[in-house]
Amino acid sequence: MMKVNGYAAQSAKAALVPYSFERREVGDNDVLVEIQYCGICHTDIHQVGDEWGGSTFPMVPGHEITGIISKTGPKVTRYKIGDRVGVGCFVNSCRKCDACKKNLEQYCTDGMVTTYNGTEKDGTVTHGGYSNRIVVDENYVLRIPDSLPLDKAAPLLCAGITLYSPLMHWNAGPGKKVAIIGLGGIGHMGVKIAHALGAEVTVLSHSLKKQEDGKKLGAYYFYATSDPETFEKLKGRFDLIINTVSADLDWNQYLELLALDGSMIVVGIPEKQTSVGAFPLVAGRRSLSGSLIGGIKETQEMLDFCAKNNIASEIELIPIQKVNDAYKRVLNSDVRYRFVIDIKSLEQK
Amino acid sequence: MMKVNGYAAQSAKAALVPYSFERREVGDNDVLVEIQYCGICHTDIHQVGDEWGGSTFPMVPGHEITGIISKTGPKVTRYKIGDRVGVGCFVNSCRKCDACKKNLEQYCTDGMVTTYNGTEKDGTVTHGGYSNRIVVDENYVLRIPDSLPLDKAAPLLCAGITLYSPLMHWNAGPGKKVAIIGLGGIGHMGVKIAHALGAEVTVLSHSLKKQEDGKKLGAYYFYATSDPETFEKLKGRFDLIINTVSADLDWNQYLELLALDGSMIVVGIPEKQTSVGAFPLVAGRRSLSGSLIGGIKETQEMLDFCAKNNIASEIELIPIQKVNDAYKRVLNSDVRYRFVIDIKSLEQK
Repeated sequence: MMKVNGYAAQSAKAALVPYSFERREVGDNDVLVEIQYCGICHTDIHQVGDEWGGSTFPMVPGHEITGIISKTGPKVTRYKIGDRVGVGCFVNSCRKCDACKKNLEQYCTDGMVTTYNGTEKDGTVTHGGYSNRIVVDENYVLRIPDSLPLDKAAPLLCAGITLYSPLMHWNAGPGKKVAIIGLGGIGHMGVKIAHALGAEVTVLSHSLKKQEDGKKLGAYYFYATSDPETFEKLKGRFDLIINTVSADLDWNQYLELLALDGSMIVVGIPEKQTSVGAFPLVAGRRSLSGSLIGGIKETQEMLDFCAKNNIASEIELIPIQKVNDAYKRVLNSDVRYRFVIDIKSLEQK
Repeated sequence: MMKVNGYAAQSAKAALVPYSFERREVGDNDVLVEIQYCGICHTDIHQVGDEWGGSTFPMVPGHEITGIISKTGPKVTRYKIGDRVGVGCFVNSCRKCDACKKNLEQYCTDGMVTTYNGTEKDGTVTHGGYSNRIVVDENYVLRIPDSLPLDKAAPLLCAGITLYSPLMHWNAGPGKKVAIIGLGGIGHMGVKIAHALGAEVTVLSHSLKKQEDGKKLGAYYFYATSDPETFEKLKGRFDLIINTVSADLDWNQYLELLALDGSMIVVGIPEKQTSVGAFPLVAGRRSLSGSLIGGIKETQEMLDFCAKNNIASEIELIPIQKVNDAYKRVLNSDVRYRFVIDIKSLEQK
């Protein structure tokens, strides 16, 4: 076993504190990644808070990981020492089910092995990227293109693919009107990617506070959802709406903004169930759908797409000692647009 | 104006009684249809009860109409006297909007002109098929293929197309597992059509009471939804589920029965909104969608498909004097599977 330093929550809702733990030695098909950066995802806060149930502690969060390979197992063929790589939301899956065979490991029938707060196939609990190194099977490692800086690329591993996958699946592109609900850590990636895909992008944000930002990021229109007129004005407008907000919204109101055959895609999971009427669905053959991150193949495509289109996350880089403050600020929507932990700060005393 | 005899509700929830009224003279593009049969759709009962609001009275219901053309306007080109035809849920639309241009008049942005309880472009209130004749623009009239008997074909005009359209749109066919929730007037059409399309059909019915029927109609499997085990056993199974039940069901339970990328289609409108959790949608990129009857072009295709595959509705033929009894029996699910009114009974005193 190898020793690893990181930060962990010792119990539900506890503040994160320094924590040393062990990871498996590098196996035949594994690579060892010296972690340089790790993004802070809202999911980390949900899991530390045990809001979805089933959390195990101590928990080392973090699934937006970038770093450099420092060791490779004897059977590794795709990577070599010194490669710039990323690790996203999962580190293993059954590899046999229909979903895995279709490169949609995130929907693995056995359940994907999540990067942290999960259970590896050998029964060990997984720990994430708020730490200095991680051992991962090469098949679950992504290559970060040279033109992408590792700090700004880290959030692509979750926030980026969470938006890229539904935008591709539901054919965002030229001639399509796409709305992104919420301009936060994942929403702002949606604006950038949808714009790069050639869609006409509208941001639906609670207020107009971030309007200027939104337009710089690639939005053509920006509307405040606190203004009831927004819902009158935009009725029947969009081919695709992606809801990045996990707060409780009246989905019916948004479904009415879809054009004929339009789809609204949920990528966050609100704590409560939402009331949905059949009428807005039936009246325009509309759909309400869900999407969960993306498979390894598609995540690599997304990284290559982002490199080609000069897309990365807008980040605020912080030392790991500020992680608890950062959590509070995420809850107050006080970040533009993603905190990324500079992992070398772990060496500071 | 021409005199017409029929049955009407004089006020909300009132029993239907004999009623004489006038229709417009046959215009340039109109045909006059001597109505022979009219199906009783659950919608008729909702509308007579003013359950969706906005009903106007006196109301002559009926939108599953078949009959023979007895007169044609001077500019009519598609039909001639003696033709066997049908009229479905709408008799006009704007003909200019995107939906109309795509042959999806049912989603007309101006609103389709419903066959009854609607307002024609000239401002007159429309009256339906519980009557002996109807005047309709030829572009909203369907041809009934010779091999289809007019009585059993009547329900195809609403029940048939309501299922055919989503089955086609969501690609039911060989290799696809399709479930139909509810084996009633529209559900039984879904079983027949999905089977003819080559899909593996499962009926999800409250009890096993109609199991034998269901299998005769084309279902391969038949499960009772009153048995909680059904929901365990069928988890993740279906590519497509069509919910024909307008009673309040727990949609989440059914969404969990969908396979990866599966869709559940709502074709009825429950009175109340339904609580939907994001989890079943997100966990398998599943969709909850709606579908509303079908356009004129697709309705003709459906009729031709039914003729080719020897499909028609299972009906119980009644004289119009029994319509109020029939309504009660529909509410008690006491019909296998569709009441059709024999319009010549109007002449009885």
